[in-house]
Amino acid sequence: MLTFERSGWEVTGNTFWGACLEFFDSLLRGIGQVMFQNNSYTGLLFLLGIACNSWLFAAAALVGAASSTAAAVALGAPREQVRSGMFGFNGVLVAIALLYFLTPSPLTWSCVVVAAAGSSVLMAALMELFKRWQLPVLTAPFVLTSLGFFLATARFGRLQSTQMLPTAGLPKSTLVEGVVTQTTVWEGTLNGVAQVFFQGSLLTGALFCAGLLLSSRSSAVLALFGALIGVVVAWGMGAAEPAIRAGAFGFNSALTMLAVGGVFLHTSRRSVFYAAFAAALAAVVHAALSAALAPLGMPAMTSAFVVVTWIFVLAARGFSGLRPSA
Amino acid sequence: MLTFERSGWEVTGNTFWGACLEFFDSLLRGIGQVMFQNNSYTGLLFLLGIACNSWLFAAAALVGAASSTAAAVALGAPREQVRSGMFGFNGVLVAIALLYFLTPSPLTWSCVVVAAAGSSVLMAALMELFKRWQLPVLTAPFVLTSLGFFLATARFGRLQSTQMLPTAGLPKSTLVEGVVTQTTVWEGTLNGVAQVFFQGSLLTGALFCAGLLLSSRSSAVLALFGALIGVVVAWGMGAAEPAIRAGAFGFNSALTMLAVGGVFLHTSRRSVFYAAFAAALAAVVHAALSAALAPLGMPAMTSAFVVVTWIFVLAARGFSGLRPSA
Amino acid sequence: MLTFERSGWEVTGNTFWGACLEFFDSLLRGIGQVMFQNNSYTGLLFLLGIACNSWLFAAAALVGAASSTAAAVALGAPREQVRSGMFGFNGVLVAIALLYFLTPSPLTWSCVVVAAAGSSVLMAALMELFKRWQLPVLTAPFVLTSLGFFLATARFGRLQSTQMLPTAGLPKSTLVEGVVTQTTVWEGTLNGVAQVFFQGSLLTGALFCAGLLLSSRSSAVLALFGALIGVVVAWGMGAAEPAIRAGAFGFNSALTMLAVGGVFLHTSRRSVFYAAFAAALAAVVHAALSAALAPLGMPAMTSAFVVVTWIFVLAARGFSGLRPSA
Repeated sequence: MLTFERSGWEVTGNTFWGACLEFFDSLLRGIGQVMFQNNSYTGLLFLLGIACNSWLFAAAALVGAASSTAAAVALGAPREQVRSGMFGFNGVLVAIALLYFLTPSPLTWSCVVVAAAGSSVLMAALMELFKRWQLPVLTAPFVLTSLGFFLATARFGRLQSTQMLPTAGLPKSTLVEGVVTQTTVWEGTLNGVAQVFFQGSLLTGALFCAGLLLSSRSSAVLALFGALIGVVVAWGMGAAEPAIRAGAFGFNSALTMLAVGGVFLHTSRRSVFYAAFAAALAAVVHAALSAALAPLGMPAMTSAFVVVTWIFVLAARGFSGLRPSA
Repeated sequence: MLTFERSGWEVTGNTFWGACLEFFDSLLRGIGQVMFQNNSYTGLLFLLGIACNSWLFAAAALVGAASSTAAAVALGAPREQVRSGMFGFNGVLVAIALLYFLTPSPLTWSCVVVAAAGSSVLMAALMELFKRWQLPVLTAPFVLTSLGFFLATARFGRLQSTQMLPTAGLPKSTLVEGVVTQTTVWEGTLNGVAQVFFQGSLLTGALFCAGLLLSSRSSAVLALFGALIGVVVAWGMGAAEPAIRAGAFGFNSALTMLAVGGVFLHTSRRSVFYAAFAAALAAVVHAALSAALAPLGMPAMTSAFVVVTWIFVLAARGFSGLRPSA
Repeated sequence: MLTFERSGWEVTGNTFWGACLEFFDSLLRGIGQVMFQNNSYTGLLFLLGIACNSWLFAAAALVGAASSTAAAVALGAPREQVRSGMFGFNGVLVAIALLYFLTPSPLTWSCVVVAAAGSSVLMAALMELFKRWQLPVLTAPFVLTSLGFFLATARFGRLQSTQMLPTAGLPKSTLVEGVVTQTTVWEGTLNGVAQVFFQGSLLTGALFCAGLLLSSRSSAVLALFGALIGVVVAWGMGAAEPAIRAGAFGFNSALTMLAVGGVFLHTSRRSVFYAAFAAALAAVVHAALSAALAPLGMPAMTSAFVVVTWIFVLAARGFSGLRPSA
């Protein structure tokens, strides 16, 4: 029997189609978990947002979620974690990233399947490593697995990168480039939300916000506010206007604001200030990590969000003014 | 009421000026903690040593200590840690480093305040992370926070570096450069102590030693002896004479000798040998880390001290011949 | 009295020669532990395999094992760990690596002694760090210590590298080079086993397999099978034929297969599949890490094995389908 709930659906009884339906519900929750939403309708709206911009990436998202979730099931991961999409979100992002930065070919698609499955092993490893601090793994498996496959292109002749991958070069200081206008700010904010899934599209950003609204109003507000902070910090520090407008300084701050302000700490006025400080630093850390990866020609992806959120969640334990969420 | 003690002063009663005085005492202890001295008179002498060489850096030290200590107070860090300067020393170093490597401007001074406050969050995070091993955080927050802001100059046009920041370049093998004389050795040793605060001045080094002497005679001896070991190892391995003389191979070894030999292990003949071995390796590790950061054009700062001290303090737990200090 | 056992010998009574004999037995076990064999006869065969190819490296192996084991004894490491070679295998590899990548000189030999002793301190530190997860340290101390000394050549004029050390350069994508034949596959596999000790020789690889056979038949099979997986993955992804043939993609996969499939997990059909997946990923991770170290001109050595084994051993704790070995 199929029951519909606020956050997705549940099947009782043990039929083949029931199992398929449950698996599909887990995949959608995996897509939703990219922005911390254990909600398959939100996942569906995120998927729709991606498909609006590119069918290829929507297909990749599903393949990645399926591969990483199936690997977790095959190895015997705890059922409730699989069902809540915890073994899906890294696979989703790995798959989109590999097709964004590598030219599509049968080998690349095989790599997508293998890398997404590998991200589930890394997820389980980091969960085990962080258990004692109750520290969330976040998208670290996605970042590390993707970087591994991108770096391997320097040794493997059949794995070819697209022009999206930056050329390796030594970092050097830069000058202010372009003029930031009101359009830059609001496009940068909305694109920032869209860039969480590597999508540079205002419509996609809007659909992602709709997906967030569906499951949690405060999440949508925090994500947009976080992206805005990232844009404003980057503007003040003199980042290049095209990069700001494309959302390059928005996605890490959006995710950090969401994680620190809405998910892992008990919400209070102080915790929102704390999260805003984290979101501001995430923009600086993103600039730093992207420069640090320049000699390798590698993208920093969501590494700034991961690092800053780890630091702010851990630190909150030592501060009496902040409490972890129940 | 104000009471003077051996290591600083304490105020009883709850007045505004009392609170200010206590806060200022915490700042001085924070400056003293850069070399493990929870003593405000020592901090005052260190500050004097810096001011002898440069008023700018002395001002930066105070601003950094104030910003990181205030952030810790605002977030609710434990009072005894704040009072002993544990949330000050990283801020002090972050502030001096930012003004050493970035051109002074209102934006740079804002970065000093934000980075020093951020270093307190990172301090709390690492304390939480290392609690289970009772491992000290040392100056890791300073190194990581500073590197973050220096790297960000490659993306942020309004953040400009000074000529002190090395130009990014691929590391390559080097030849012996210059002749080491007796002057190189003693200047390298004293400058090594001064370089703990980025100061290249013999007088400053002497004042730092005086500050150490004031609170602990053995600390002064260990710091000088550590710096000497670093100089001798660098000389034997063929480092460039100007770098040795400037103290580049002294400060990490001085801090390592102090930490391993005097602070974190119970002192015995074996522990002093062990610390001397650590100080010698710190010179090699500094060379290695400084080469590893060459493609990014980044300075290694006290990273060698941090890494080597972590290793030697952790390892001591597994060796029956060494005991942690009570 | 001297008693011979299946895995080595034991001396009762407290004579000088008895102590020497025990120490020598510990060294051989240290050489055996490079491939997880606590067996001095296996260690002797490994040493013989090295000596077949180069007397210099055989001498280095003994000096490295002696230096790291002696340091552990002097500092008071637990006797049973010293006797089983746990403080020997990193020293062995450090010594061979330093003589492989640095030109032999009295300074280099001093570095061998110091670095091997230092690797024992790092071993103890990492054992302490990983104790709570019962995670093995593997050859991480070897990799990190060796990299430290290689990197230091950029600052120390008297430490000169051989032509074996790659020139620093920015990574860029590559083309398929050469044609893989049957010979490539079997030579790549056998050389892969030999490359565990930096030896590029089929005879040495065969002697290593004999050494493994002596102490554990399944270990020999797993090592060869792992090396074969690495070769096949590298071939499929389009790695350069000369590199595959030389065993560059074999040694990390061989060690990973051995560790995950035979040492740290309870053997089952699922665990062998899991280990084969780990061995396949080890080839990709080796390509990635070797590219990541390209701007520093540094070799990746066994870092891929270390990282992948850590991940797969940790993750296995979270998967009900896999169990740690008793």
